[in-house]
Parts: sequence; C-alpha cells; structure tokens
Amino acid sequence: MVEPIHPPQTPKGALQIDLGVIEAAAARIRPHIYKTPLLESPRLNNFLGYRLLVKAESLQHTGSFKLRGATNAVWSLSDDVRHVVAFSSGNHAQGVARAVTTRGIKATIVMPEDTPATKIEGTKAYGADIITYNRYTESREDIGAALSEKYKANLIKPYDDVRVIAGQGTVGLEISQQTAEMGIAPDAVLCCCGGGGLIAGLGIAVHAHTPETVIWCSEPKFYDDTKRSLETGSIQQADTDKSSICDAIVTPEPGTLTFPINRQHLSGGAVISDDQALKAVATLFKHLKIVVEPGGAVAVAAALTGQVPSGVDTVVAVASGGNIDSDMFNRALDAGAFF
Amino acid sequence: MVEPIHPPQTPKGALQIDLGVIEAAAARIRPHIYKTPLLESPRLNNFLGYRLLVKAESLQHTGSFKLRGATNAVWSLSDDVRHVVAFSSGNHAQGVARAVTTRGIKATIVMPEDTPATKIEGTKAYGADIITYNRYTESREDIGAALSEKYKANLIKPYDDVRVIAGQGTVGLEISQQTAEMGIAPDAVLCCCGGGGLIAGLGIAVHAHTPETVIWCSEPKFYDDTKRSLETGSIQQADTDKSSICDAIVTPEPGTLTFPINRQHLSGGAVISDDQALKAVATLFKHLKIVVEPGGAVAVAAALTGQVPSGVDTVVAVASGGNIDSDMFNRALDAGAFF
Repeated sequence: MVEPIHPPQTPKGALQIDLGVIEAAAARIRPHIYKTPLLESPRLNNFLGYRLLVKAESLQHTGSFKLRGATNAVWSLSDDVRHVVAFSSGNHAQGVARAVTTRGIKATIVMPEDTPATKIEGTKAYGADIITYNRYTESREDIGAALSEKYKANLIKPYDDVRVIAGQGTVGLEISQQTAEMGIAPDAVLCCCGGGGLIAGLGIAVHAHTPETVIWCSEPKFYDDTKRSLETGSIQQADTDKSSICDAIVTPEPGTLTFPINRQHLSGGAVISDDQALKAVATLFKHLKIVVEPGGAVAVAAALTGQVPSGVDTVVAVASGGNIDSDMFNRALDAGAFF
Repeated sequence: MVEPIHPPQTPKGALQIDLGVIEAAAARIRPHIYKTPLLESPRLNNFLGYRLLVKAESLQHTGSFKLRGATNAVWSLSDDVRHVVAFSSGNHAQGVARAVTTRGIKATIVMPEDTPATKIEGTKAYGADIITYNRYTESREDIGAALSEKYKANLIKPYDDVRVIAGQGTVGLEISQQTAEMGIAPDAVLCCCGGGGLIAGLGIAVHAHTPETVIWCSEPKFYDDTKRSLETGSIQQADTDKSSICDAIVTPEPGTLTFPINRQHLSGGAVISDDQALKAVATLFKHLKIVVEPGGAVAVAAALTGQVPSGVDTVVAVASGGNIDSDMFNRALDAGAFF
C-alpha cells in the first residue's frame, strides 16, 4: 500500500466534460454496447485482504472498452458523414470497425504492421479497410490526416477526442451505478492508462457520484508517463526505446485533452513490469475465469503487487480488454498466477 | 441442424419439483451466489446464423454452477447439522466446500485421486477436508456413506438430491428472467448433462416460463447415456471403459431422480468429441474472452457443430464451469477455434 502522490489538481483551462455529457453518451450507445459485470472471487478477496471488484470490460463486444468511445463518436456524426478514419494499435480499431456497422457507414483503419494478429483479424472481420504502416518510420497522424482528406472522412482519434473520452466515461458511470446498487462506494478505482481517455472519462463520472473515491492509474514499466506527469505537473515522455508487452497502452505521452482532466481527478498510480502483467493475466485466468490481455490486466496487477492507496476496504479495478493471441496467453500461463 | 428426437414424455411417478421449489431455492441462495451474465458476440452470431447467448456459469464463484445446488442444500439443513459429506470429481466439491463456509459448518469431500489439480487445490483453499480414492477400485458411494455415519453428517449428492436439483434450477430461472428482460424468449436452451441435475432443474424452470422452448442436452462422446436413454425410454449406460477430457460430466448413467424429470422436459441432444470440446474452449477464449473447461463447453460445442434443433433464431447455451488446468487450456489453444 502506498500513499497518494499528491492531491488532485485543477489546472486552468481544463476541458469541461461533465457528468451530463457522459450520461448523454451512455444513452446514445446503450443499444450497441454491453453493460459489463463487476466480478469478484472469495479467494482473491481473501488473498488481498480487501474486496476487489473487477469491471470486466474484456467481456465487452469487440473485447475491449474501446467500443464505447468509438460508438459514441460514430453516433454523434451528422447524417451526411458516411466514412470515418481511425489509427490504432488494435482495440480502438476493432471498436471503430464494429461501431460503423451499427450505423451503416464505412471505416478505414490505420494500424501498425506489428499489431497482434488477433486484433488485425478482428478489425477485418467487421468489414473495415485496413492500411498498415511502420510505426518506427512513418507517422500515423500524417497518414490519418491524408486519408481523412481523401475520403472526406471524420477522424476518430483513440483518446484525444471529446466524443471518445465521454464514451469511455460510461465505464465509470456503470461502476458508480453498479456499486450503488450493491450498497457500497469504492474507496479506490484502479484503471489502466495509455493515452488516458478511459481513466479521464471514468474519473469525471465516478467523482460526480463519490468525490472521495481515489482514482489511480496503472501503467507499464517505461510507459509511466502519466504517473510522472502527475508528479511533476507537466507532460513527461515515455521511454519509447523500451519495449512492453502491454501493446494496448504504450503511448509516448499523456494526451493534450486527457492530461488536464487526469490532473484534476487522479491521485497517483502504479507501474507494472511485463512479468507482473503476465502473472496478473494468469491470476485472472485461474481465479476469475476471464481472458484479459497484458495491457488490460495492469490495474488488477496494481492490486496484486500491493501498489494501491493505503487503507482501502473496497476497490474496483478495470480489466479493460481481452484481445490476446494464444502465444501470449501461453506465456502468461507459464509465468503462473500470483497465488 | 437436427430434428428433435421425440416429444418430451411424462412418465408416471416423476419427481415433483415445481417452479415454486426453485424460486424458494433462489431466495435462499441469493446472498451467496453471483447472478451470471448472458454473453454474446456479434462475430459468433454471424458465424452461426442465429443469436447465441452464453449463460456464463464459469463466472460463478468457485468457477461453476455447482455452488448453487450445494448452497441450497447447506442452507436447507436444520441448525443441529454441523458437518456435511460430499463425493465429487471437483466442481461439486468446490461448491460444497465454499457453501459450508457461508454457514460456518464443516465439510469432508471424497475425490478421485486423478482429479485435476486446480479442483483439488480449490477445494482445499475453502478449508474442506479431502479424502481421495481410486475410482477404478473403490466405491465413492460406500466411502461417502461410511463417512456420513462416522461424522453424523448430511450427505449432499452431486445430482440425485432434490435440494441440489432445485438449486441448479436457478440457472434456468435466471435465463428465463434475463431473456424476458431483453424482450426475447429462447427457441432452445442447450445444456451439458452429466448426472443431469443442472438440466433437470433448468428444464423445469424454463418450461414454467416458456413451455415451447426446446431443452437440449449435450454430452461427451461415449458418455451420451442421457441422449440414448431418452431415445429408448429407459436408463442406458455410458461406455465407461472409454476416456473423455470432459471430467466434470462423465457419469456412468442418468440419475434415478434426474432422468424422470429430464424425460419430461428434454427433446434430444448432441454428442461432442474431445477435439470438438477443445475447439469450443478455444472459440470461447477467442470470441467471448471467457475461460471454460471442456465439460463446461459441450453445450456451446453443440451450437458450433450444428447439433441444435432446426429453425432456431435465439438460443441460450450454458457454459457451466471454468475449472481447467493450464496444461489442458494450452491443449485447447493448440486445437484452435472453430473460426
């Protein structure tokens, strides 16, 4: 257990997304998304010494929470927009590819050549056009902008997009509603953080219901740019020369829109090694019987490695995605569960 | 797609468990069990050509539906009973071991020596005493009876027990309630069948709500004793010389209490090979992101192999358990998904 790094800050000029915007997103996406359960295990609770509820967004259609933001963006478009463009390492790609099918419009997705096969296959299966690029030599932003121009398409960014942040925030809305129905309020919510769109929307929604809840990010080793940015109060870079198996959440720096929000709502965070992420995947296999990818398991890994705020009795951890190849899952099973 | 084998029969002297008994069980066990979700995947629906909802009992505490029947039995005991005995290949064992902790009484569990390690470990973790036996040379019934005498304990049988059948029936009750909330009625419910306790209770509960729903069993190859018993109208034996990886549902013959109920409610069934069960496990990993054991995946395998009643638009399949060792899960991933 660790103390929160610092009290949440309210910088000037922070983006105004409030509960109403997230509730509107929830109403907009409701027909197209699945209200994922809060799972728990008596043995896991016993191991941790407090109650851990896992928000299983891995069970979301397309295998990750990204469907929420993508669907909110697609259903926010005016009727004359018939094409969208997105760049993504995989989960946002699948979210956008699925979202456009619910509205009968087209999607072109820009993906790195080295994206896990299951994510490329999933994106193709929904009928999207895919353009691959080399992430070390080409700029996905430039490719995305050129494609948007060519197709007169709307660009749906993976996190620095108000529509996307609001859509991801519905995860937080559900956590608040589901815990309230159980008659409890979470002392902390642990959530993975790449570009920070999910935790930004989640922080707004949860704090609107329970302002005392600690919002806590979890990031991969070398990609703890949000934690360090919170500590210093200014945007810090990730060590992008280093590799991480948490492909879903390796981003170079906090988002321009997301970081000011996260500075308002987050109190600190955890840093997770590859081995810890793999062992968290194996622990979720063994004790909760769910399939979670390494980047989706870092919030649960924060709990399993004791990197949580001190004095908690009830904690929610988001398991954000389950799009993992068989080979990587085998590697996790070989690493073994924490207990 | 196949035609139902025969119309359901109502034999004389069939056990009277009605909806009221199952609703009473639901009220009794509510504080101790988890209401599992109905999961679906747009890609899976597209592959099958109809809507498949998977009742994920693998997400139940202890990793299987068996907790329901065990909890109903334990909470039906009078206060002077302080010890229970059960024999089980694993999932019922974990269910009973967990159930007694909610009431503060003791359990002694009789398990085969060759039970998967994860199931023995799970049973021990809840604090139960375990006695192992050789399933080829010893009788678990005799051992269980002797222990019950020794400890003045109540014997909780895995399926031929009214309290257990009623508890398992709450799975069917939830299916009826959850589909009604979605505004749909299932054309068929597919469910695994070992001793037949789950499908017996489920059939009663579902037919009380939607009498037209086809209840369809799924059994492992060589252990299709219920399907053959339905066809012949009399109890048939499994080919117990043959092996199956579906350890949770390999039973020598239909239960004395369960078969008369199943004859009333079941219209036929599917037979699943080891390879088909493994591929179903891999398909559930890939498309629904859940961990299911081979015996728990046979109902979904029935759908994936086209062994379902003809003309269905909406089908529910029960994924009954997720207690699978890493080695067997690796084997399933190697077998690969159906698509």
